Amino acid sequence: MQLLKDKIRKDAKIIEDRIVKVDGFLNHQLDITLFNEIGKEFKRRFSSKQVTKIVTLETSGIAIASIVAQYFNCVPVVFAKKHAGLNMNQDVYEAKVYSYTKDQEYTIKISREFLDPNDKVLIIDDFLASGSALMGLINLLSQSGAEISGAGIVIEKSFQGGRKLVNETGIQLESLAIIDSIKDGQVYFVTR
Amino acid sequence: MQLLKDKIRKDAKIIEDRIVKVDGFLNHQLDITLFNEIGKEFKRRFSSKQVTKIVTLETSGIAIASIVAQYFNCVPVVFAKKHAGLNMNQDVYEAKVYSYTKDQEYTIKISREFLDPNDKVLIIDDFLASGSALMGLINLLSQSGAEISGAGIVIEKSFQGGRKLVNETGIQLESLAIIDSIKDGQVYFVTR
Repeated sequence: MQLLKDKIRKDAKIIEDRIVKVDGFLNHQLDITLFNEIGKEFKRRFSSKQVTKIVTLETSGIAIASIVAQYFNCVPVVFAKKHAGLNMNQDVYEAKVYSYTKDQEYTIKISREFLDPNDKVLIIDDFLASGSALMGLINLLSQSGAEISGAGIVIEKSFQGGRKLVNETGIQLESLAIIDSIKDGQVYFVTR
Repeated sequence: MQLLKDKIRKDAKIIEDRIVKVDGFLNHQLDITLFNEIGKEFKRRFSSKQVTKIVTLETSGIAIASIVAQYFNCVPVVFAKKHAGLNMNQDVYEAKVYSYTKDQEYTIKISREFLDPNDKVLIIDDFLASGSALMGLINLLSQSGAEISGAGIVIEKSFQGGRKLVNETGIQLESLAIIDSIKDGQVYFVTR
């Protein structure tokens, strides 16, 4: 998605040729116009799939998933919680996820009442790197019996191995910007 | 807002006549159609105000704020972080907030680069109860010199005192459903 790649080249901050910081438009300040374009693009890529629910992960996926849902007939969004409050239902599906940016293992949870075997779920998330978050969500969704219609990622860092894990599941994976490498503060995208 | 009150009466779970659990449509599973109606209603109530940015608080405010932004010319949304990652900028505005549902004090943070004195900010959040979260956001925003155009709340629990604190600041406060009391599992709204 050219618009997104241009935005990353222009506004992302590269730290130690390893971290792509997109706080300015994707996960602290949110560019709602860009998110609408992202929604249209995911709709185009998953146009043949049935989607009854969009599932994402707290925190960065929530805003993107909510805007994207508008392009899939405003289906409900369910986000897996990392920081469950005292009021959270104890009857949950859960899975372990390791966060590299926080150097911490989380248990992600979704209340059982919000997923069932009739659901056809599109997973949306901001980043794919090692695949830990996405594989955690896939594991959690498998427990519910829901069908996974696909996984839509905004930015993929291809050199961290996540795609290989997802491909083994057979799930359609669509990333809107795939970073091949980072060198001297410059981002190089995979061209397709 | 009648649609919202009906939804609360129909789908909220009342716990110990104290907690209004809206996991089914507001803060775990998200009703995107309802969020669009909420966006229209906030636009109506703040139609006379200039808004250059919408600010909310991690986690539950993010999805609502993102949809609401579409009714304010897709202005950027900035959310205050409760769980800052290792990559977060250290140059932040911050304030203390006490969460009753998690029984925990948080420091909420927004990077200085995303707020400036030219901003006219609409605050959006899911709940107003004691006012701790909203007063924390107001405190944080005041540090930036940004003008606060108003505060839009989805559900207010009027019996927990938050409104009084906000009124003392002179900021326009609009809550779409104001709960007067809860008795025997029934919610009673303030009628205006």
